[in-house]
This record gives sequence, structure tokens and C-alpha cells, in this order.
Amino acid sequence: MNQRDLTLLTDFYELTMMQGYYEKGQNETVIFDVFYRQNPCNGGYAICAGLEQVIEYVKGLNFTYEDVDYLRSLGIFDEEFLHYLSGFHFSGDIYAIPEGSVIFPKEPLLKVVAPIMEAQLVETAILNIINHQSLIATKASRVVFAAAGDGIMEFGLRRAQGPDAGLYGARAAVIGGCVGTSNVLAGKLFDVPVLGTHAHSWIMSFSDEYTAFKAYADLYPDNCTLLVDTYDTLKSGVPNAIRVFQEMRDAGVKLTRYGIRLDSGDLAYLSKKARKMLDEAGFEDATIAASNDLDEYLLHDLKIQGAAITSWGVGTNLITSKDCPSFGGVYKLAAIKTEDGEFVPKIKLSENTEKITNPGNKTIYRIYDKATGKIRADLICFVGEAFNPDEDLVIFDPLETWKKTKLKGGSYTMRELMVPVFRNGECIYQSPSVKEIAAYCTQEKATLWDETKRLFYPHRVYVDLSDKLYAVKKELLNQLGRE
Amino acid sequence: MNQRDLTLLTDFYELTMMQGYYEKGQNETVIFDVFYRQNPCNGGYAICAGLEQVIEYVKGLNFTYEDVDYLRSLGIFDEEFLHYLSGFHFSGDIYAIPEGSVIFPKEPLLKVVAPIMEAQLVETAILNIINHQSLIATKASRVVFAAAGDGIMEFGLRRAQGPDAGLYGARAAVIGGCVGTSNVLAGKLFDVPVLGTHAHSWIMSFSDEYTAFKAYADLYPDNCTLLVDTYDTLKSGVPNAIRVFQEMRDAGVKLTRYGIRLDSGDLAYLSKKARKMLDEAGFEDATIAASNDLDEYLLHDLKIQGAAITSWGVGTNLITSKDCPSFGGVYKLAAIKTEDGEFVPKIKLSENTEKITNPGNKTIYRIYDKATGKIRADLICFVGEAFNPDEDLVIFDPLETWKKTKLKGGSYTMRELMVPVFRNGECIYQSPSVKEIAAYCTQEKATLWDETKRLFYPHRVYVDLSDKLYAVKKELLNQLGRE
Repeated sequence: MNQRDLTLLTDFYELTMMQGYYEKGQNETVIFDVFYRQNPCNGGYAICAGLEQVIEYVKGLNFTYEDVDYLRSLGIFDEEFLHYLSGFHFSGDIYAIPEGSVIFPKEPLLKVVAPIMEAQLVETAILNIINHQSLIATKASRVVFAAAGDGIMEFGLRRAQGPDAGLYGARAAVIGGCVGTSNVLAGKLFDVPVLGTHAHSWIMSFSDEYTAFKAYADLYPDNCTLLVDTYDTLKSGVPNAIRVFQEMRDAGVKLTRYGIRLDSGDLAYLSKKARKMLDEAGFEDATIAASNDLDEYLLHDLKIQGAAITSWGVGTNLITSKDCPSFGGVYKLAAIKTEDGEFVPKIKLSENTEKITNPGNKTIYRIYDKATGKIRADLICFVGEAFNPDEDLVIFDPLETWKKTKLKGGSYTMRELMVPVFRNGECIYQSPSVKEIAAYCTQEKATLWDETKRLFYPHRVYVDLSDKLYAVKKELLNQLGRE
Repeated sequence: MNQRDLTLLTDFYELTMMQGYYEKGQNETVIFDVFYRQNPCNGGYAICAGLEQVIEYVKGLNFTYEDVDYLRSLGIFDEEFLHYLSGFHFSGDIYAIPEGSVIFPKEPLLKVVAPIMEAQLVETAILNIINHQSLIATKASRVVFAAAGDGIMEFGLRRAQGPDAGLYGARAAVIGGCVGTSNVLAGKLFDVPVLGTHAHSWIMSFSDEYTAFKAYADLYPDNCTLLVDTYDTLKSGVPNAIRVFQEMRDAGVKLTRYGIRLDSGDLAYLSKKARKMLDEAGFEDATIAASNDLDEYLLHDLKIQGAAITSWGVGTNLITSKDCPSFGGVYKLAAIKTEDGEFVPKIKLSENTEKITNPGNKTIYRIYDKATGKIRADLICFVGEAFNPDEDLVIFDPLETWKKTKLKGGSYTMRELMVPVFRNGECIYQSPSVKEIAAYCTQEKATLWDETKRLFYPHRVYVDLSDKLYAVKKELLNQLGRE
């Protein structure tokens, strides 16, 4: 995390609870699941991201003298516990679904198996990191889907919620499918393409628009996108851009990457007019890029209206996920290990049935249609449950149990989604590069039906429970109901 | 900024433009204004925040060898320019409205006066920092207003958009009026109160709720807030809490800070029932705290419904400013210094009249009603304009100029809002502590009429232009219209 000490990036109650467990001598191994309940923006899926930063965070856990001094100053922690903290390190296991994967509500996307004091401490930062990056990766994926093959550039740094939101948001946006970012620091740290040309202030700092364009074209003839809306797009900006392109051509410059950018006004109307003007001047290969408060909905609409735009800069609405600025991932106790080494499943009740957690030490299998490679369903089960894809499999909705689907043996394949990340406190997972994760994410999205990817009222993918898990859950609910 | 190198936290086009200016030998001093156009959440005002982090950022500007190597690897910057960058430091002036101030749309809240290459580089990070913290401080102020005197605790770290959003969001929330945060790192770095007790997992890790409560009360008898909704709030949680409070009282423990926290269900109904149960058991001074997807609107409604809650934990909706997750601050060129040392005002046109910028080297005066101390209006004018509060002053709306107000001489006072922060690259401003800023913000809010603070359809405070500024703006518009 850029060498910062994030050990204290936790909720205060994690520490008061830790001291509580410490005093009670109660530090049994537990399982916490990270999962979320609803896809952002009413979508049909999400993209998980942030694991690399979670790994860095866990590896970097270390209460410095200053941290301990600060905690001591609060007057609520005793010396023995503070001494314990000063020697703290994470000794547990972590399993997770790799970054860039398609995920669905209610399935554990990260699982912490650790002594309860340790598992409790890491809750807040893990959620913070996973919630943020999964949110932005998912949003980016939606915007990229709406662009139907056009490139999306992430341009939101100035409106992001602080430096990290810009930095890790850019990372997540590229994972979700953006072709690059304006964020130079993200380019450096994550080896992703950085993009951008010039601002209105460039134009305004010259005596006139033509001179400003000309100066820019002289400097960057190989990559010359001119911002045409400073004064008047169609009367001044586009004609001046054409004049400069013509002069470049006349001077024998080979125009390769060049074009205009629209940043205000009606993008459908202006782009069509500008396209006509460029074409008539013989610049059919000039690109038209656009920015200005875009999101997947507006982009989708502009496409329908035939906007002549093939490159899109998306800022605020992507980097903040404006219509849904939080992911809602939670961290829930699923099991406690007894002295004889067994995990006892735990359940959290709620007045809302769909908020009741899934108990036990779980894993997830993804079921694919053999013929198409598309996802049929996900199956949450206990670790160690075995399935034979040559046999028929009946899956059912865990809330509306009469909704059953029979998968014929031989027609489907199964793949376990979680991979081990930490074992006994040691990281045993090597994060891929961001480019590799982005490529993997593209493959992952190809396993979704278009009906699940669409922006409005998507088809929901089933996430079902194994018979065994369902039976244990029902039994626990009955027990609690009796009490 | 926690010792991070944020020099590359900028949009790529700032660097391509910088190189452009470098190559053209064009580095005249310019003025850029930071301002915003609309109050978040349709409110009547905003609170500015983030200046301390802007100062740290500007002080820390330094292209390391690695930064320069990275930029070189992009193949677009030449060696001379890279050499210039490796010796870069900020040499300009910055003026700003102090953190915690009440601000209104269109007035410059920060002003950079610097050679254009430097002024351009710092645009992105300044906007990022100011936009984020001003957004959250403003949102916090709204939530605090809705709570009508009850304490608001900032609990959003796990849903914040990355570590910084949690950290600096907590800082901004305290500036905006929150009594504390759950974020321990924010507590350490900004010396603000940290708060919190225990989670559902604490309850679930014990054999039963009563035992969990009892254990917690034994540990923290001085500050004992019990979370009562893990199983069933009214049938189990509240009775078990009362049992534990009774046992504490019987054992001679002096109950000072104690009570319950509700985290689900209908908070109005449950709090009233719980209040009755606590009162009947003789615990009239037990507090009832609540959390669960709160924002200023729900809080306002719960107050109207007579919810018996006096302490509120607000998470996601505050830390992300959910219904309005970006502030929209922009950075616009206002003037360019000529060789003879004069600032030539610059204006940015737009098809939307209200998006046209205010030209020139400006400052802002706040006009107070002498009798009440409340804000009458803000007046944007050129630096050096003088006003005599003993004389009548006619102010007018810059868009709807027939809307005039006459302030009688002697009935008002005036105060200049901006303070110098950097002069010739040197920081000459000492940031107050966060607690001091928060106290100042409380004073600032007291200068607003309640009509401006209300959540819905607030009264707008006038932000007017001086006659001189208005005349120059009109002249520039006429000029551009003629071209």
C-alpha cells in the first residue's frame, strides 16, 4: 500500500473486542466470510478486486511503538494487552476468489480462518479494500459493456474520494475493462496505460484557439487529440482542428493517432456534425473522443442515438460509482473451532430472511454449461463435499426452495473458485499483474450470458446451497427458533 | 499525507501540457481558481476542508529518480523536460479560505498564483483533496444538523472508497461536526475521539447473549454499550441488557456511560419500546444509540417520529456521501500576468450561462448583518477593491441582475475570507488542529440562518460580484461574442 502503515486502519471496536478476548483467554480459531448481498447498480454480477492490497495490508500488520503509545494514551487498554499487540502478527489462513473474477451475491469471496483476535482485527481494512475496488471494477465493467467495443478511459482522479480512491480506483477500473487511466501514479505503480492530451486552460493560455491547436500538434504529431469546445465547438473548435490537421498533412506529417475531443454540449448532435465536417475535409480516420459526466446509462443512450464517438473518457460517475457509491460487503462469523478441531457452524439471524448468513466452513463451485462454457449456477457447499459432474445435479434456490433445476450428468463442468492465499500467516499466493488480471476478467465476463450483463433488469445467476449446507442451516434456524 | 510520494498523483495531460509550455518557453504567471458550482445534496451551503493535506502535498512535491525513470519509459517526454522535472519545486503563491469555513457556489475557495507549468501540475491533486474532504465535511454537517443536538459518530471506514477515503473522510466528518469516529488511525493521526464497543460477532462467539453481555460489562464497566439486536431485540437483547445492568448496579458498580445500541429493524418503534423497558427497570439514564444505513433524511424522520435515540452511528451514507458522492470543484484559469506585471483577466465560455467563469485576480468579502452576526451575502471582487461598511452597498445577482439588495451603511460588517497560504513557494500558514477547525466550523455554522441550514429547499445565500468585476466580465463576454 505504498509503504504506509495501515495497522491502525481498523474500527475501534475491533480493539476493544480483542482486549476482551485476550482478558477472557478466549482465542479459538474462527471462520469469517466476506460476502455481499446485492450487485451494485442493480446489475447481474460483480467483479471482485483488491486482493493484492489485502495481501500487502496483512503482510504489513505491525503495531509500532507509536501505535502502542497512542493506544495507551486512550486509557482503556492494559499493559499486558498492549504488550501482546506489540508482538502481533497474523498467523491464520486466508482463501479468496482471485481478482477479476465474476462473483455473485451471498457467496464468500474471501474467507479468514484465524484465532478470533486476529480475525477480528483485520475485518475493517479487508472490507474497506475489497468493497472499494470491487465496486469500481464492477462499475467499470458496466461502462465498458455499454461502450460495446469502444475504449473507455478512466479520467476521474480529481473527483475521486481522496488519493487512494483515485489510485486504487484506477487500478480497479482497468481490471474492469478500461483501456487506461489519466492517473500517472496509477500508471507507475500498476503498469497500466496512462492517457490524456490537454485541457481548456491550454487553449486559453494562447492568443487564440488555432494557435493553441497548432502548438499542440507541433509538439505531439503522433498523438494529437484536440479539445474543441473551449469557445464554440462547431463554429470554432472543429474548423480550427481541421485547419491544423490539413496543415499537418500538407507538411507531410503522417497522421496516425489524431482527432478531436468533445467535453460539453449535446454529444450525439455535436459528434455527428463534427464527423461530417471531418469526413468532408478528408479526415475519415480522425477519432472523436468524448467526455462530460458520462456513465453507462448515458453512454448506452448515445450509442442508440448514433453518436459518432469511438473513445470515451469517463470521470466522476465511474470513479465514485455515483449511483451506487458503496459495495456493501460484510464480514460475518461462520464457524468456531472446538477443542477437538471441529468447526461448529454459526449463524446470524435477522428479521430479513435474506440477511440470514450461511453457516460453516464453506467453499464455492462454479457450474458451467459444457457446450457453451457459460455459467449455469454457483453452488455454495462445505469444504470437502464432492460432486461428480457425470451425475445429475439438482440445484435449488435457498429462499424459494421449490425453484429447482436439474443439470444432466455430462452436460456441465465444475470448478472451485477459492484459492489459498495465506497459510499459517504466510502468503502462498503470487498476485498477477494488473494487466493479467484485466485479461482474466475479460475471460471471466465471456462466461456470462448477455442477459446477465445487460444494464437493466438483468437475468440473475443462481447461487444455490448444497443439500448438506442447506440442512445444517435449517437445523440451526430451528434450534434458534426453539430457544 | 502519511509520508507518501504523491508527486505523480496528477492527470497525464498536466504533464503533456507542462512539456508543451516548456518547449514553447512559455511559463508566465497565471491565476487558477478552485470553485464549485452547486452545493452537495441540494443544500444551502458547503463546508470547505482539506487545506492541510493540500499544503502537505505541495510541500512534498518532488520527482524522484524513479518517477523520472517511469516518465522516461513512456517515450513521450524529452530529456530536457525530464531534467527540469527532476529539479521541480513549487515557487508560487496559494490563497485559501480556511478549513471549516462555510462556503457558497462560484466563489474561489483556493487560488493558485504561479508559473503556468507549476499551476498546471498541482491541479489534479488539489481538486482531489479539496473535493473529497469538502464533500464529507458538508455531508457530516447536514447529518449533524438533522440530529438536532444528538451526537453523531462516524462509523463508515469499512464502506469508504479506500483507506484514504476512510482516513480523511473521518477527519472531514469531525470538522463537519461529528463527535468522533470508529477509525483508529484517524484518531491517532488527527487527535480526534475514537468510539465503538462491540460487534455481533462478540455475541455469537459466546454460548449465549447474556454471557456475552456480562463478559463485556465486566471488562468495560465505565463505558458499556451493549448491542441488542443479534437474536431478537425486544425479547432477548433488551431484557438481557437490563439483567446485566441490574447485576452491575447490585454489585455496586456506578453506572455512568452505559446503554444499548440498535443496529437493525424499525429504529423508531424499537427505541421507544426499549426506552420504556429501560425506564421501567430504573435505567432512565441508559442511552440508546442506533446505527443501520442512517443518513440525514432518515435521521430527520426518526426525530419527527419521536425515536428515543440520543446517539447515532452513521456509516456508509456519510463516508461516501451516498446521494451525492462528488463535490464538483473545478480549477479554472482566471488571469495571465503580462510582461509588465499586470494580470489580464481570462474567461471560459460555456453554452450554459451559469458555467461561465469569473475572470481576474479575485478575492471574497463576506457581509454580515451587524445586529445578528448572520451572513447577508458574499461579494466576489478584484483584489485591492475597497469597501466602506459605513456606506450603503447595493449588491445584485450576477445572472438575474434586476435582483438587487441595498445594504444600509452601518448595518453590516465585512470580512475578507481568503488567507495567504504559500508565498513564493514557502508555506506561511500554520494549519490549526482538527479539533480547532471543528470548533471554528461550529462558529461558522452559527452565522447561517436556519433557513439556509435546513435539509430541503434551503434559502440560498447571495454570492454577488462587485460592479467592477461585473463590468470586466461583461466586456470580456462582449469581446468574445464579437469574434
